[in-house]
Amino acid sequence: MAKSIAGPEIERLIQLLAKLPGLGPRSARRAALHLVKRREQLLAPLTAAMGEALEKVAICSVCGNIDSRDPCTICCDPARDQSTVVVVEDVSDLWALERAKALNAAYHVLGGVLSPLEGIGPEDLTIRQLIDRIHRGGVRELVLAVNATVEGQTTAHYIMDQLDGLDVKVTRLAHGVPVGGELDYLDEGTLAAAMRSRTAL
Amino acid sequence: MAKSIAGPEIERLIQLLAKLPGLGPRSARRAALHLVKRREQLLAPLTAAMGEALEKVAICSVCGNIDSRDPCTICCDPARDQSTVVVVEDVSDLWALERAKALNAAYHVLGGVLSPLEGIGPEDLTIRQLIDRIHRGGVRELVLAVNATVEGQTTAHYIMDQLDGLDVKVTRLAHGVPVGGELDYLDEGTLAAAMRSRTAL
Repeated sequence: MAKSIAGPEIERLIQLLAKLPGLGPRSARRAALHLVKRREQLLAPLTAAMGEALEKVAICSVCGNIDSRDPCTICCDPARDQSTVVVVEDVSDLWALERAKALNAAYHVLGGVLSPLEGIGPEDLTIRQLIDRIHRGGVRELVLAVNATVEGQTTAHYIMDQLDGLDVKVTRLAHGVPVGGELDYLDEGTLAAAMRSRTAL
Repeated sequence: MAKSIAGPEIERLIQLLAKLPGLGPRSARRAALHLVKRREQLLAPLTAAMGEALEKVAICSVCGNIDSRDPCTICCDPARDQSTVVVVEDVSDLWALERAKALNAAYHVLGGVLSPLEGIGPEDLTIRQLIDRIHRGGVRELVLAVNATVEGQTTAHYIMDQLDGLDVKVTRLAHGVPVGGELDYLDEGTLAAAMRSRTAL
């Protein structure tokens, strides 16, 4: 439709914006209009920021994090415990753990989880690179911070199997009641796990 | 936080993406990650599309529409009834009417509605330009397609007052039951209006 209204440039902008997560065709239209109306305040700086990201941002060859340097800032940080590697599914999980200041350690981004149904096997993830990294030495603890889903747990077990014979301690995140969570709204599995792992007050 | 994780480039991209309507800080982070991961498929083409919009897209000096030509495609279209001008608050309303193929006519974008509370007066809208446009001649009907809100109706009345003595027919959109709408969910004002304007079957 808009081909005859606002020209192919806007139409293309809308189509591409609609590919962003959280934006559908309708909100992409609103976003495009918002951008075009705020030419100097938003469209120009966002175009520049994206151009800069396009030019500079790369994937860390050590851990899979996204950064403007390779190896990334985290992998190069001497103030971090590089002997503890937190294994996550995705960069977004790495960011979430960093926001929580969960552990001052290094990371390894798997790039997904094993999923036979979706045809994702070990070779589609960075499991080989993780094992190689441990073989190179210096890694004492591996924290498997994968999601508590079936696929996440399957992936964790697969990694455990691959570690056979390697001298590395493997841990996982604790299960329990989320801080601020109400018992009444929690599933039984979480409640049972929280009870099993109860701590002294 | 992310300053130490993903570098200032990503941080700036997230900040700017969060200014788009429909994206909050959290979804802006997801969008930035999505973009960086899909460098060639999305980040590069979107950057190019935004650069093109930045370069080409302008506001039509006749009607206020957004297009890559000025006067816009609609204003230049000889197949349209240029003697009928649909007055809308915003370009998004123009697009909505065009998608609905509501009327093959010209438009006039007010750029908002009168709102004493928000300090928006007639001089902040394009009412003067609308009156000038009618003075130049050729406009036979003005369809006041403003929103059915208090501000929209106030703006419509203000425009009516300004048209005093000008030979132009003024109409407004019909009130009634939305197509597919359920009576039980409609407000009383709409139902009463729909009943008053009932049509023969």
